[in-house]
Amino acid sequence: MRPEVVTMADGGGGRAAGELVAKTFLPHLSNEHLAALSDGAILPPIDGRLAFSTDSFVVDPIFFPGGDIGSLAVHGTVNDLAVSGATPLYLSAGFIIEEGFPLADLRKIADSMGRAAKNCGVLVVAGDTKVVARGSADKIFINTAGIGVVPKGVDISAKRVRDGDAIILSGSIGDHGMAIMSQRKGLKFNSPLQSDSSPLNGLTAEMLRAEPDIRMMRDPTRGGLAATLTEIARASGRGMVIEEDAIPVGENVRAFCELLGLDVLHVANEGKLVAFAPSATVGRVLSAMRAHPSGRDAKIIGTVGGAEPGVVEMRTSFLGRRIIEALAGDHLPRIC
Amino acid sequence: MRPEVVTMADGGGGRAAGELVAKTFLPHLSNEHLAALSDGAILPPIDGRLAFSTDSFVVDPIFFPGGDIGSLAVHGTVNDLAVSGATPLYLSAGFIIEEGFPLADLRKIADSMGRAAKNCGVLVVAGDTKVVARGSADKIFINTAGIGVVPKGVDISAKRVRDGDAIILSGSIGDHGMAIMSQRKGLKFNSPLQSDSSPLNGLTAEMLRAEPDIRMMRDPTRGGLAATLTEIARASGRGMVIEEDAIPVGENVRAFCELLGLDVLHVANEGKLVAFAPSATVGRVLSAMRAHPSGRDAKIIGTVGGAEPGVVEMRTSFLGRRIIEALAGDHLPRIC
Repeated sequence: MRPEVVTMADGGGGRAAGELVAKTFLPHLSNEHLAALSDGAILPPIDGRLAFSTDSFVVDPIFFPGGDIGSLAVHGTVNDLAVSGATPLYLSAGFIIEEGFPLADLRKIADSMGRAAKNCGVLVVAGDTKVVARGSADKIFINTAGIGVVPKGVDISAKRVRDGDAIILSGSIGDHGMAIMSQRKGLKFNSPLQSDSSPLNGLTAEMLRAEPDIRMMRDPTRGGLAATLTEIARASGRGMVIEEDAIPVGENVRAFCELLGLDVLHVANEGKLVAFAPSATVGRVLSAMRAHPSGRDAKIIGTVGGAEPGVVEMRTSFLGRRIIEALAGDHLPRIC
Repeated sequence: MRPEVVTMADGGGGRAAGELVAKTFLPHLSNEHLAALSDGAILPPIDGRLAFSTDSFVVDPIFFPGGDIGSLAVHGTVNDLAVSGATPLYLSAGFIIEEGFPLADLRKIADSMGRAAKNCGVLVVAGDTKVVARGSADKIFINTAGIGVVPKGVDISAKRVRDGDAIILSGSIGDHGMAIMSQRKGLKFNSPLQSDSSPLNGLTAEMLRAEPDIRMMRDPTRGGLAATLTEIARASGRGMVIEEDAIPVGENVRAFCELLGLDVLHVANEGKLVAFAPSATVGRVLSAMRAHPSGRDAKIIGTVGGAEPGVVEMRTSFLGRRIIEALAGDHLPRIC
C-alpha cells in the first residue's frame, strides 16, 4: 500500500510523480491547459499590456484561521496583479515539499488552491513539484507566478502620485499578521483572530471602472502599511500625512499588538489595499469601493503633501505628529 | 557592519530586504521592468499565443562543473518554453533562502542568472525573496516562471505524433545527472564530468524555421530519456522503437553509470532535446540542428510505430529488444 505521505519518489519525474499530480493536484486544479501536462501551457493571445508577478509562500503554520498556504498563494499573486491594475488570468504553481508531508494535508491545500482560483476567476495552468529529504525544507513551500492583462487607459505607478491625492485604505489592518502570530503563540481570544486573506481583483476592477485615473495601488503585505507607504513616498518623491484615528484596526488585533509590543502599521495584511486617487475623483472611488464587499470599510486615511519629500508622517490620536518608518528587519518571519 | 550572510531581516519586506534586492540582485538582473520594483511588471502587448511555464530548482550541490543553481534555473524554464515551440521572452525569479546563506554565494548566483538570461535573450522582470530560519530550508531554492510567444503555424503536441515519425536526439545523454552525482560522491575522473546545462531556444528557433511542422519536442530532464519517451508514447497512444547504439553517451558518463548501477536512460539532462518530425522533413530538421552548436551531434535514434500503443521498445547492442520504462521512484534526488 502506498504510504499516506509524500515520498522522495513523488519528486522524481517518474511514475510516482505522475500519480501524485494526477491524483492530488488535477482533481482540484484541472482545466484544459493544465490537463495537457506539457512543459509549457499554451494560452490564447492576450490583447493588451501584460502584468507578470511572482511570490513564494513559506507561511508557518500552513493552516490558520481564515486560510492556508494554498489559498494564500493564490490570493497573494492575484492581488499583486490586481494592484498593478491588471485583470489576473493565469497562475503557475511550484511546490517544494518535505519528504514525509501528509498526503491528506496536500489534498487539503490543493483543494483550497482550486477553490481560491475559482473564486478569483483565474486558471492554474502550469505546475511543478519537487520533493526534498526530511529536514531539507520545513513542510511545504509554494511559489505562484501570475499573468494578467492591463486594461487600456490604466496606468498604476508610484511616479504618478501628486500632492493633493487622497490616500484611501480598503479596510482594517493587521488581521493576517496577528492571526498567524496568535496561532504560533497558542493564544486564545473570545473571538479568534482571523486572517483577511482574500482576493482584491473584484474590488480593483470596480475601482478602475469607476475611475481609470487612479494613480497608484498596493496591497500592504510584508512590512505592513508602514513599508507600503514609505516605499511609495520614496518612489514618488512625495511627502504624505496620514491620520492615526482614520485607520481601522480590530479590537482584538489592537489588544494583541499591545501585548506583543508591535506597531500595527508594521503588521502584514493579505486582503487590503491602499489607493492614491486625485482629489476630484475620490467620491467616485470611495463609492465604488464601499459598494464592494472587500471595500465596505474603505476610508480616506491621509493626503499626499504636507511632509518632506519621501517622508510619511502620522497625526496621532493625541494630536502629535510622528514619522512613519519601515522596519529595518523582520520581527514577523514567515508571515506569508 | 552588515554580516556577510543572509539574515532573517533580509526577508522581511523592510529596509534590509530592499537593500538585499538593490545591492545583490539588481546589478546582475536589472532592466527597465525589474527596476520599477512594483508588485507586478507591466510588459508590452505580445502578438500571438503565449506559453507559460514554471519550475523550482533545489539542486544539491548548488555549484557544480558546468553551472550552478542560478544558470540552471534560467536554462530550465527557458528550455521548457523552447520545447513548447515558444520564443522565451520574460522570466520571474522567486528565491527561498536559508538564514546564514553567504552573500558572496548569492552574488555569484545572481551574476550567473544574469549572464544566463542575457545569453538566452530573456529578461528577468519580476522577483521575490523569502528568508527562512536556519534548518527550515537547505541553502537556497529558486523558482523561475517564464512567458514566451508561440510563432504562427507552430503546434508542438504529443497528440500530433504519428507512426513513421523520426525520433531525433540533439546530443549525448546523462551529462547533467552524472556531473551532479560525481560531485556528491566526491569522485574524480581524468576529465571531470560536466553538466550540459545550456539554453535550447537558439536550437529550437532554427529547427522551427527549417520545419514548422515538427510535431513534438521535449527536454529529457528529471527521469531522463526513458521518462520523456514513455510519457510521449502514452500521451500520443503510439508505440515507438529506439536503437541503443544510436544514442550518444560520453565515455565517462557510461563508466560512472556502470559504477553506480544506473541506466543512463534514466539520468537527467539539462541541455538536450528529443524531437518528433514527419519522415519527409527529417533531412531539413537534422541539417538545421547540426548547423547549430547545441545540435552538432543530433541523431535519429528511432521511429514511431513498431511497438504496442503507449510502449517504448529499445533494440539493444546485442540485437535484443527490451521495453523501456520510467522509474517508479527517484534514485537521483535533487538533481535539478
